[in-house]
Amino acid sequence: MLIFKKLFNSIVKYLVLIKMKQVMIVRTDLKMRKGKIAAQCCHGAIGAYKKSPADKIRKWENEAYAKVVLKVQTKEELIELKKLADDNGIANYLVVDAGRTQIPTSSITVLALGPDEDEILDKITGDLKLL
Amino acid sequence: MLIFKKLFNSIVKYLVLIKMKQVMIVRTDLKMRKGKIAAQCCHGAIGAYKKSPADKIRKWENEAYAKVVLKVQTKEELIELKKLADDNGIANYLVVDAGRTQIPTSSITVLALGPDEDEILDKITGDLKLL
Repeated sequence: MLIFKKLFNSIVKYLVLIKMKQVMIVRTDLKMRKGKIAAQCCHGAIGAYKKSPADKIRKWENEAYAKVVLKVQTKEELIELKKLADDNGIANYLVVDAGRTQIPTSSITVLALGPDEDEILDKITGDLKLL
Repeated sequence: MLIFKKLFNSIVKYLVLIKMKQVMIVRTDLKMRKGKIAAQCCHGAIGAYKKSPADKIRKWENEAYAKVVLKVQTKEELIELKKLADDNGIANYLVVDAGRTQIPTSSITVLALGPDEDEILDKITGDLKLL
């Protein structure tokens, strides 16, 4: 019976307790306008979505498609976070803007992560503040 | 020869002249913060992306993934634009926020359109201003 109980608990944990989200991290030193920020985040969201495993996407879509937008101050922080995401096997997409408007050409603007489990994403973004 | 010339011209027009974009339209009367706006736009962007025909997505992805964020002042304008999008066969997604933060429950926040051709989208959004 113990094995069934353990299995049951694992399933419950997977279905109920593990929450999913997608995280977009915006670089603030470029002083982008809110419409520009939103467009860059959309680019990242679709980019990371396309790279995510199907089972994670399915679980995320079965919940409320949670999305969180956080901020860092510099390009270097985004690059460091991308490295951490790669090291932790988190699907990610770094947005490089063509820079036709508002900001210099080929600027790194946003890093998008997941969808992935809250716990996994919080490991590398837990200290960042909401935009 | 005329038919070949016409065919050639059509292909050139399709490949070169027809530009694609995705449009997100944000309701401003809710006074959402920029991070909230970005998250709502991401939700819409993925929603409309998933409803778009594969050939339009492919063409959009072969260009620069152009995204434009526009604004309206009221919910009624968003609903009217959704009706126009439906009438014109434009893939669209109306974002209804769970409203756990910042704004009232079940608020309509964003309408996302496409990706689709500039010309088709401009027919119904050409008068709107950038956010």
